Amino acid sequence: MKLQFELQKEEKNTKARLGTIHYGGKIYETPMFMPVGTQATVKTLSPEELKEMKSAIILSNTYHLWLRPGEDIVKEAGGLHKFMNYDGPILTDSGGFQVFSLAKPKDITEEGVTFKNHLNGDKLLLTPEKSIEIQNKLDSDIAMSFDECPPANASYSYLKQSVERTLRWAKRGKIAHQNPNQMLFGIVQGGYYEDLRKFSATETVKLGFDGYSIGGVANDHESKENMYKAFSYSTTYLPKEKLRYAMGIGEPIDIIEGVIRGIDLFDCVSPTRLARHGHALTKDGQVNLKNAKYKKDFTPIESDCDCYACKNYTKAYIKHLINASETFGARLLSIHNIRFLIRLTEEIRESIKTDTLLEYKEEFIKRYYGENYGKK
Amino acid sequence: MKLQFELQKEEKNTKARLGTIHYGGKIYETPMFMPVGTQATVKTLSPEELKEMKSAIILSNTYHLWLRPGEDIVKEAGGLHKFMNYDGPILTDSGGFQVFSLAKPKDITEEGVTFKNHLNGDKLLLTPEKSIEIQNKLDSDIAMSFDECPPANASYSYLKQSVERTLRWAKRGKIAHQNPNQMLFGIVQGGYYEDLRKFSATETVKLGFDGYSIGGVANDHESKENMYKAFSYSTTYLPKEKLRYAMGIGEPIDIIEGVIRGIDLFDCVSPTRLARHGHALTKDGQVNLKNAKYKKDFTPIESDCDCYACKNYTKAYIKHLINASETFGARLLSIHNIRFLIRLTEEIRESIKTDTLLEYKEEFIKRYYGENYGKK
Repeated sequence: MKLQFELQKEEKNTKARLGTIHYGGKIYETPMFMPVGTQATVKTLSPEELKEMKSAIILSNTYHLWLRPGEDIVKEAGGLHKFMNYDGPILTDSGGFQVFSLAKPKDITEEGVTFKNHLNGDKLLLTPEKSIEIQNKLDSDIAMSFDECPPANASYSYLKQSVERTLRWAKRGKIAHQNPNQMLFGIVQGGYYEDLRKFSATETVKLGFDGYSIGGVANDHESKENMYKAFSYSTTYLPKEKLRYAMGIGEPIDIIEGVIRGIDLFDCVSPTRLARHGHALTKDGQVNLKNAKYKKDFTPIESDCDCYACKNYTKAYIKHLINASETFGARLLSIHNIRFLIRLTEEIRESIKTDTLLEYKEEFIKRYYGENYGKK
Repeated sequence: MKLQFELQKEEKNTKARLGTIHYGGKIYETPMFMPVGTQATVKTLSPEELKEMKSAIILSNTYHLWLRPGEDIVKEAGGLHKFMNYDGPILTDSGGFQVFSLAKPKDITEEGVTFKNHLNGDKLLLTPEKSIEIQNKLDSDIAMSFDECPPANASYSYLKQSVERTLRWAKRGKIAHQNPNQMLFGIVQGGYYEDLRKFSATETVKLGFDGYSIGGVANDHESKENMYKAFSYSTTYLPKEKLRYAMGIGEPIDIIEGVIRGIDLFDCVSPTRLARHGHALTKDGQVNLKNAKYKKDFTPIESDCDCYACKNYTKAYIKHLINASETFGARLLSIHNIRFLIRLTEEIRESIKTDTLLEYKEEFIKRYYGENYGKK
């Protein structure tokens, strides 16, 4: 059963879109935040908890599952859904980002990327065909083309060559793709250059994919302006009827700005990573529960939040768990933080319905980031 | 609402007993295994999961909660039940065992024990009164008297003095006790000496407690014989209508032998600790999921187990999680291991009902430990 996307509405004042995803007899709405389950588990959480917090698509990492336990074991288990007991939609990345960021590539050639396995130091080669083969075996619902992920500060000439190579790799991956139940997305790269993004998007669309991802936007934390430009430069040239996914983006304002520029899907490890460090996302900004002021705070993280953590536990208790290095603390904060981002997308969808997304954005920024956000 | 215990039946062939505990409108049965939530959380698990695996009383550690977050914070939160969101019965220990094992006592005097806080090295004094005061504030349902926990190899003369001191401490604690909703247990010590156990039990009973614990049996892993003797030497002199609790005992055979000798309550950190190391308890013995042979084992840990882990996940998946240091693996194994010990007590109770506990024991040993168990 292949996942189906339908565009339902475009906002009047922005490029924001409402959409529906039909999958396994259920309907999910976009824009959507997708929690990350790197190693076939969203850290500390059960599939039932993910469903309770209304998560839909979750993401898992091809690179990690390739190295451990290995795609053949996942295939023998009946695919990733059965292996990890999650019957909602699953998206896998191509492994490219990890090869470039985590494994330190030894050599990038036309064939693919040679790199060191970060677990045991073995030399390995990841190619467009291999990435697709692994994802075919994992049997995710949405697979990614293998792309080169150049550093944010790469030169124009390097990026130009890289975009061209990513296109050739996308083509090879498309030919190698053999799982009829799995969507395959093309990836738009091109840094912050309008002409490169346009070229990358236009040519990738010509190859014809089930959806399109925007890569190369998550590495650069220096300039949000650039990130948002890259969103616009990309989505402008993408077909309306296909899903668009901004890879690795999960900061609340970036989700909102991404939606405004026509993006449907977002993912990020931040909600669970922040949780492990004792940080909670709230409408009034991020709070650090390690702070002494929460010692006797017997109120929930957010009194109007409907998550399991907020309905049952106080900041003082969660703070205690985090201080005592008790996993249940990270679990409660992961539940809250993921639910926070999912609630954010629920509110975004409501504001698209009423064509009030820009007003929502202003309101959200004021509370979350403060009155002076964006002012120099 | 004070917890109520009722003795329901004694087995024909052993000293095993069936009992019921009335608490919060619910009825629980003994013999019972109590999971340990050292720092106001049973590691990795939620209260809902504990209930799903039919756990009843859980144990929490006075020493740990005293140091962090502090008993006053727990009291302000409305007591331990509210703090950790567990509405089943909670038992707290006295802090004695931790002071003697974890904190390395500097000085044992008639007043109490001076020791080093294991978190920050501060010098602290724990007295019988202080232990009770802390437990009163934690508002557990069953509190323990503060006892001296001498090493297993202590001399007869030391043990004799120690038992006498423990009696004086028990008396002081009883006077200090001020929580009308909380049971207070006395503790029987005396090593493996029949006369000391008899003296300790008889004199502690004279002081009049709501139940009785058997201490000093968990430290010695060398001689099970000695442990079982200490059980018998103690329970022989305890009133039938009161609960009896073997502190820190959770090895399956020790639970069975304890029940045979008239013990009702058991606790141990082993099921969650084993889980974190990838070990699963099964009827056919303990298995280590790190073992390569489980790599492609797509069957549950135990096919006839009704726990969440066995109903939804394979050994191959849990092995992957453990290998990848994913917390969800420890969580699934904790669920299974605790449920295993609770199922063990369910089966023990069934066999008491039909007066077949000794047969059950033989059968259990054969499968779990093998034909040659106990043979030299």
